[in-house]
Amino acid sequence: MEIHVITDGKQSTVELTNRLLFMHKEVDYIHIRERNKTASELMSIVTKLIEQGVPKEKLVINDRLDVALLNHIPNVHLPGHSFSTEKVKKYNSSLRIGSSVHSLEEALMCEKAGADYVIYGHIFKTNSKENLAPRGVKQLREILEKIKIPVIAIGGIDPSNISELKGLKLKGIAVMSYVMQSDDPITALKELRKSIAEG
Amino acid sequence: MEIHVITDGKQSTVELTNRLLFMHKEVDYIHIRERNKTASELMSIVTKLIEQGVPKEKLVINDRLDVALLNHIPNVHLPGHSFSTEKVKKYNSSLRIGSSVHSLEEALMCEKAGADYVIYGHIFKTNSKENLAPRGVKQLREILEKIKIPVIAIGGIDPSNISELKGLKLKGIAVMSYVMQSDDPITALKELRKSIAEG
Repeated sequence: MEIHVITDGKQSTVELTNRLLFMHKEVDYIHIRERNKTASELMSIVTKLIEQGVPKEKLVINDRLDVALLNHIPNVHLPGHSFSTEKVKKYNSSLRIGSSVHSLEEALMCEKAGADYVIYGHIFKTNSKENLAPRGVKQLREILEKIKIPVIAIGGIDPSNISELKGLKLKGIAVMSYVMQSDDPITALKELRKSIAEG
Repeated sequence: MEIHVITDGKQSTVELTNRLLFMHKEVDYIHIRERNKTASELMSIVTKLIEQGVPKEKLVINDRLDVALLNHIPNVHLPGHSFSTEKVKKYNSSLRIGSSVHSLEEALMCEKAGADYVIYGHIFKTNSKENLAPRGVKQLREILEKIKIPVIAIGGIDPSNISELKGLKLKGIAVMSYVMQSDDPITALKELRKSIAEG
């Protein structure tokens, strides 16, 4: 099962770069999702990561297609406020494109639009969506039955609740604050990996 | 002399689109500079403008290279917080790239980096740079003498002061609030054009 880490926009360019360099070997994908950083800051982060040995294939650029293109990063994630999947596929059909979805309808639409995978959530209670009720495992199960493209689950997932996802044909899970706000992200990731294995 | 209009980020997607459609024939370039709009909103504005007859060659996309690429718009403007001119030229050498500069040193650097033109300012007192003293015409004259690429002047320019730019080998002038906040942008632009001719 893939582990995706999504950055939380709460760290400076230098802090974020150092944290990602420190832990990148423990994760399968790193989503750079930094809405308030400038193009220049994003370029600085990405350039440093690549220079220091993070494989480009491991990076996913959220929204800023241009940052992905200039750095030959093959993965982009397009939230609802970003470009349409069709437009981006038409421009460059080799890009791997993910979408964020919150319902079966959205998941079906994204699949039809050509998305390579969807991130669905939030599954459990999470501080980053405090005012929204979690969508739970039931709808996730329905989505997994009805769409063919890979599904990544997100939202409050940690070693304490990962057993609830047992038996689902998930492609992966995505975490944000669990890793980004951890004082010891490597141990946090190892524990997550262990709990998945024990699943 | 070219007239560039730069959007001021103060209007909704619909208001902005309608204003630009209404006045586009009176200007040479429209710079879409909307830092707080999403990629989806920028696509909506640009798609509508192109569909309704605004030539792509008249549009300049500020910062969001991806929006320019997806719409085959040939002009991008890169402020200091955006991508480096070298990186963008290397990715697509046919793009016309402008830079914003505030000194002779910056202008020389941008010329060396491959910028096709610079926008220099602010020349006169302007509400959008209330706490910064205007740079005046003297430094503008020096820049015009020392760099070879075209220079566009910006900052508080209106029919009342345009005569102060008389005799300078400027490629154009850029205006923002003079047009974007005008109740009658077409008359405002006609008066500006007239004052340039008389200038």
